[in-house]
Formats: sequence, C-alpha cells, structure tokens
Amino acid sequence: MPVNYATPAADQLFPVAGVRLGVAEAEIRKKNRRDLTLVALDAGCTVAGVFTQNRFCAAPVQLCRNHLAAGKEIRALVVNTGIANAGTGEPGRQAAQATCEAVGELLGVAADQVLPFSTGVILELLPVERIKAGLPAVFADLKADNWHAAAHGIMTTDTVAKATSRTLAVNGKKVTISGVSKGAGMIKPNMATMLGFLATDAGIAQPLLEALVKEAADASFNCITVDGDTSTNDSFVMIASGQSGARFAAETDAGWAEVKAAIIAVSVELAQAIVRDGEGATKFITVAVEGGKDVEECRKVGYAIGHSPLVKTAFFASDPNLGRILAAVGYAGITDLDVDGVKVWLDDVLVAEKGGRAAAYKEEDGAGVMAQAEITVRVDLGRGAAQASVYTCDFSYDYVKINADYRS
Amino acid sequence: MPVNYATPAADQLFPVAGVRLGVAEAEIRKKNRRDLTLVALDAGCTVAGVFTQNRFCAAPVQLCRNHLAAGKEIRALVVNTGIANAGTGEPGRQAAQATCEAVGELLGVAADQVLPFSTGVILELLPVERIKAGLPAVFADLKADNWHAAAHGIMTTDTVAKATSRTLAVNGKKVTISGVSKGAGMIKPNMATMLGFLATDAGIAQPLLEALVKEAADASFNCITVDGDTSTNDSFVMIASGQSGARFAAETDAGWAEVKAAIIAVSVELAQAIVRDGEGATKFITVAVEGGKDVEECRKVGYAIGHSPLVKTAFFASDPNLGRILAAVGYAGITDLDVDGVKVWLDDVLVAEKGGRAAAYKEEDGAGVMAQAEITVRVDLGRGAAQASVYTCDFSYDYVKINADYRS
Repeated sequence: MPVNYATPAADQLFPVAGVRLGVAEAEIRKKNRRDLTLVALDAGCTVAGVFTQNRFCAAPVQLCRNHLAAGKEIRALVVNTGIANAGTGEPGRQAAQATCEAVGELLGVAADQVLPFSTGVILELLPVERIKAGLPAVFADLKADNWHAAAHGIMTTDTVAKATSRTLAVNGKKVTISGVSKGAGMIKPNMATMLGFLATDAGIAQPLLEALVKEAADASFNCITVDGDTSTNDSFVMIASGQSGARFAAETDAGWAEVKAAIIAVSVELAQAIVRDGEGATKFITVAVEGGKDVEECRKVGYAIGHSPLVKTAFFASDPNLGRILAAVGYAGITDLDVDGVKVWLDDVLVAEKGGRAAAYKEEDGAGVMAQAEITVRVDLGRGAAQASVYTCDFSYDYVKINADYRS
Repeated sequence: MPVNYATPAADQLFPVAGVRLGVAEAEIRKKNRRDLTLVALDAGCTVAGVFTQNRFCAAPVQLCRNHLAAGKEIRALVVNTGIANAGTGEPGRQAAQATCEAVGELLGVAADQVLPFSTGVILELLPVERIKAGLPAVFADLKADNWHAAAHGIMTTDTVAKATSRTLAVNGKKVTISGVSKGAGMIKPNMATMLGFLATDAGIAQPLLEALVKEAADASFNCITVDGDTSTNDSFVMIASGQSGARFAAETDAGWAEVKAAIIAVSVELAQAIVRDGEGATKFITVAVEGGKDVEECRKVGYAIGHSPLVKTAFFASDPNLGRILAAVGYAGITDLDVDGVKVWLDDVLVAEKGGRAAAYKEEDGAGVMAQAEITVRVDLGRGAAQASVYTCDFSYDYVKINADYRS
C-alpha cells in the first residue's frame, strides 16, 4: 500500500502531441503481463536524459548514452520489464543493439535513433527474439492517449502505476506535460531499476532541455532514497515535441520560468511516487536541511538521516527517537560542524538545539508528529544559507520480508 | 544468539599485572544490574585511545580526549551503562567532570588522570549522585582477576559479554593481553556505543602505543559495521602496564612484531565479537576486497557491500543474489572502475567476472555457501595491489523488531 498515492484515472493523463505510446504482452519473463512498451516520437522532438552513475550500468544505459551523444534525432523509446540486461557483458550490449535495430526497422528510422530501457532481473540475458516477436503488437497499439497503459507497462514489483499530467497556458498556448515512473527502491530486489519518462508539447531547444533534465533530476529523482542502493539501470528521460506551438530556446524566454517550474513539479511528483510506493513503506518522510555552507553538505546530512536504518525503523515505530537523528547529523561528514548551533524540528516542533534536547520539548509533541503518515524532519545547520531536501520512507518488517523472500 | 561466539570462562581471562577491575550495581537507570565499572591502573602505565568521529560526540569522549592530550599519567577508567551522556551539552560535560573528580578523590589522583566512558540512552543527563554513591562498592571490588565481571559490567543490550585473553613468551618474559568490548551495532537503538578496552603487562612507550592503538583500531573496530550508524560514544582504549618486564619503545625492538601481532589479533577478536552479536544477526560476513589501487577504495567497496540493506537481506535469506553485490561494487564510488576486470567469489566459488556471471558458476554452488553461518565475499577489483576487509552481519526481521520496538 503506497503512502498517500493513487494512480490517476486514464482521462486525467493528457496526450502530448507528437508522442504516441503502445504496450503489449511479450512474455519476456512471465506470461499475462504487459511487459513491452514503445514510445514513438514525431520528427522535431528534442530529447535529453540522465542515467545511473553505477559503474555496473546496464547495457541499455550504455546505448542510451551513446545514442544521445551521437546527436541524431531520437524517434523512439523502447522499454521492457522482466530482464534488466545488467551485468551481462558484451552479449548484453549486442542484445540491446538488436532491440534498437528491430524498433528502427519497424518505424523506418536508424537504430541509433532509438533509446532502449530494461528493468527486471540482473545477470540474465535479454531474450531479443521475444521482444522482436512482441513489437508488431506494440506498434499496433500506438496512440497518444495511452499514458495510463504505459504507466502499467513499465511496472515490475511496484504496487501501483505512477503517472501524472498537468497543463498550463503560456504565451497564449496550452502546454501539456505528462510523465510516468516506476520503481519501489533505488534498486529493486533482483528487479533492478528506477525509470522516469516525461514528455511535453512545449518546444525546448536541445541545450536548454539538457540543462533542464539535470536540474529536474537533481530536484526530484536524485533526492529520493528507499534503501540507499543505486540501481544499475536508473534512467530519466525528457521529451519536448514542440507541437503546442510554445517554444523556448533560452532561460530568459518569456514563459520559460512557468514551464520549467511545472516540469520540475511533475518530476518531483513522479519521484516522490516511487518513495510513497517504497518497499514496505508505511510513511513518507521529507528531510529538509537548511543553514548549510553549501548544497553538498545539506545533501550529506539529508542522506545520512534518510539512509540510517536506525532512524528509519524509529519512523516505522512512530518513535520520536531524537538521539538517532542527532547521531546521523553528527556522522554525516561535516568535520567542522558546531553541534551547539544545530536545530532540529519534527514538523513544527523544535526538538533539539544547543547540543541536546530543546528545553521546551515534550515527548508527547514529538510522538504526535511521528504518528502521522507524512513527516518533515527539518534540520538547521546554523552555518550558511544553502538548503536541500531528501525524500525517503520508513523501514518496516515488510522491507525485510520483500527483500529476503523475493527469490525464494 | 550471537553467531559462533560464547563468552570465555572467567578462568580463561587472565589478570594483567598493574590493572585491577571492580564492578557494582549503582542503579544508574535500572535496578539489579551491574552498571558501574572501575579500572584502576598502577603508576607506570601508558594509555592511548581512539574515539568516535561523530560531531555529536558524547561529553565523556570530549573529556577522554582532553585528559589524554594533557599528558598526565592516566590512573583510572570509569565506565557507566544506562545513560550515554551524549547530546547533553554543557551540563553533560559538567557531569562527566564531576565523575572524574569523584574517582580521583577515591584513588588519590587528579581528575584529569581519570578517563570517563558512558553508554546507554542518548539525550539524558548522567545522574552523578548515583555514580558517586556507587563508587565505594566498585572500589571495594577492585581485583586483578575480574575481567569476566568487567565484561558483564559494560554490557547494555548485548546478548553476551565479550572478552578475550592470550599470553605469549617474548624476550624471555611472559606477556599477557586481556580485553573486553561491548556493542551490538555501531550505534545501539537508543543505547549508544561501542566500547573496547585492552590491557597488556608489556611495557609500551607512549608514542609506540599511540601508533599501535590507531593501527589496531583500523584493523578491527574500524572494519566492522552492523547498520552503518556511527555512535556518539565509540571508544577504544589500550593500556600497557609494563609489569611483565618486557618493554618496547620502537618498531624495530626485538619481540615487538610478535606482541603487536598478538594485540592486533585480540583487537580483531573483540571487534568481531560485536558483529557476531549484531542486532538480529544470524550470519557473520567477511567482505575481503583486493586488487585495489589503494586501501581507501577497497574500504569503500567493502562498506558499500557491508552496508547495503539489499545485500544484507539476501544473506539473511541465504540467497546468492549476485546482482545486489555487483550493484554495490558499482556504486561504491570508484568512478573509473572497469567492471569487466572485477571478479567476485563467495568463499571459493567464482561467481562473477567480465562484467557478468562467471561462465562456470552454478546457482547451487552459490546457494551452498550462502547457507553457511560464516561467509566470505571476496572481490578482486583488478586494478592494483591494495586490500582491505570489512566485517558485517546479515539483516533480519529481528533487526527491525529490536530497533522498532526498543522504546515502546
């Protein structure tokens, strides 16, 4: 059960002109499962992405990087679930290449105009023949109002499909933004991967889009943690078709600030949906760190708190165990931190200052906050003006159950 | 139930000439519990220690650092359980100081010749009056053959007392080394702390002892992880009384290599005992990383594997989930790692090479190793001659239970 999250209805997910989606069952690893998704792009789209920093990155991630770097117009994305095609060496690269070639033939474009994505079991080779056999059905299913199906098509052990849409009026044009994501951990048990795809009918020049995808990822997918494990397949791709007629080439363009804010908001919503559906999650935690010398040290503190199994089990127990939070602040790696200047709040309750428990703090106030399904831990480091937030979930019996039982 | 560990019998823990220990019940937090331990040192001992790097370090840790830096001869260690005296600000420092003064009066030495240690609940003030009231009983209990009682006196939620002794003949003298440790996590639920104390009747000059305690800590307590949380109170102290007649002042002294090796071996045994008694542990895991460019990157990989909740739950499930181990190697932070050169073994079974699963690997061979209570994960990074090991345990339902239920 995700924390305060439900998949929007199909008619709440708006088509993005220039983008068509198709889904089919290709029996890649199991029967009766929508496991192959194709996103076909009209000519004229710009596309940019960010990918996992894991050195054991999957074969499709390597091809995505190469194809984007080659600079040809991207015309399709193909996503399979079931097999991650990670830890598969040279045969894995060939399988991903063959997938791109098959999609290219179907759509009449070159293989390096296709971006491949895989999610599922690591260390097993992609069954390219089944993907090829499934492609005609996916092709036949292509349509613009198919975001709901695509959100389901990229799921693995997610308990809900994750998608969102919004529209805004900019410069006299109606701009639509739609996106889907999947994942219930930074890495899933044996099923690797976080994936995020976002499309807009705004036109966004390639350099501006590349800057935006990095900025949006830093504000969204790069701020979430379920278990601290970085997947081999993480990918976040942004598509701008331009078919709304609203076009942007520079940060200073009229209306760009609004479009950018909306795209970042959609990215954050898609990323947070992954945490809300985190393995075994019963609570959604925002760790908001402020007063740092730079963003980097704020993120260190946010992740120290967000990764600590002791803090996360305390959230599960609704226990305002302040010592665990202070200890995590203390070992986050700021070697010259003056702990007497640190303040910590649970929501609006000041719980710690001057190196210890706040004088006015009452345990029942902390307990009241901890009992909620959504909690903000606010930390003021008291040494600067930088800030950063990290989103995480609690750590429950079910986390161990899901991860210990997965392959048995 | 610790993994392959039992407390030695009292007569297997040998007295160290020059060192007397006393234990008593002082009702610091609970009744009927040995919670106060005093270690009295004859004149002529050298003492050195290493302490937590946590910025929220406890008041007693701050005093230990100050007293060791002041350079007077250390004549006593006093340890209380129940209250960690961490996150207590200035009042906490005064409480630790008052404890040292009371011990100093009792033994006729100055307050800064006393090292204080506390372990227990964070954010609560030390009840100095109860410690003062308990000191006469501890003083009356002082004796050389009291290591077994001292091992029990420093326990908090440990399920077993942890101690070891060994003797060796060096330069015609019989040298004894005895030590105790406590802790079941790098930080305990609300009960902070890892503590380690080791004494020998070898004489070790202060500079040599200071180098040794760092080297021994790096090979032992700094290589263990239960949950990745660094405590506010971690302390490891080494005492050398010299009363065996064997004395050492330089690395090149005859017999020093043997004594040093024995002291490091005792340190490793004490540290590993903490992991064997790790919260909820059912397995003891050695992560041995070799072929690194430097020790630092080997440790990064060791800790990435040793901290990963996904890897640790796989150990709990006896599941040879290689993808999780490879993913951890990949995100450990070696940005120029060539994954095709990495090899991974479970004990002697080669499981991964050339970027993926080893050709000859059979799942049942991996499963056989994973079913054991003691497992070595060996990783060859294939890029140098450095190596490092990390010791950890698995991650079970009981870990969540212990940490989620602790205060409720």
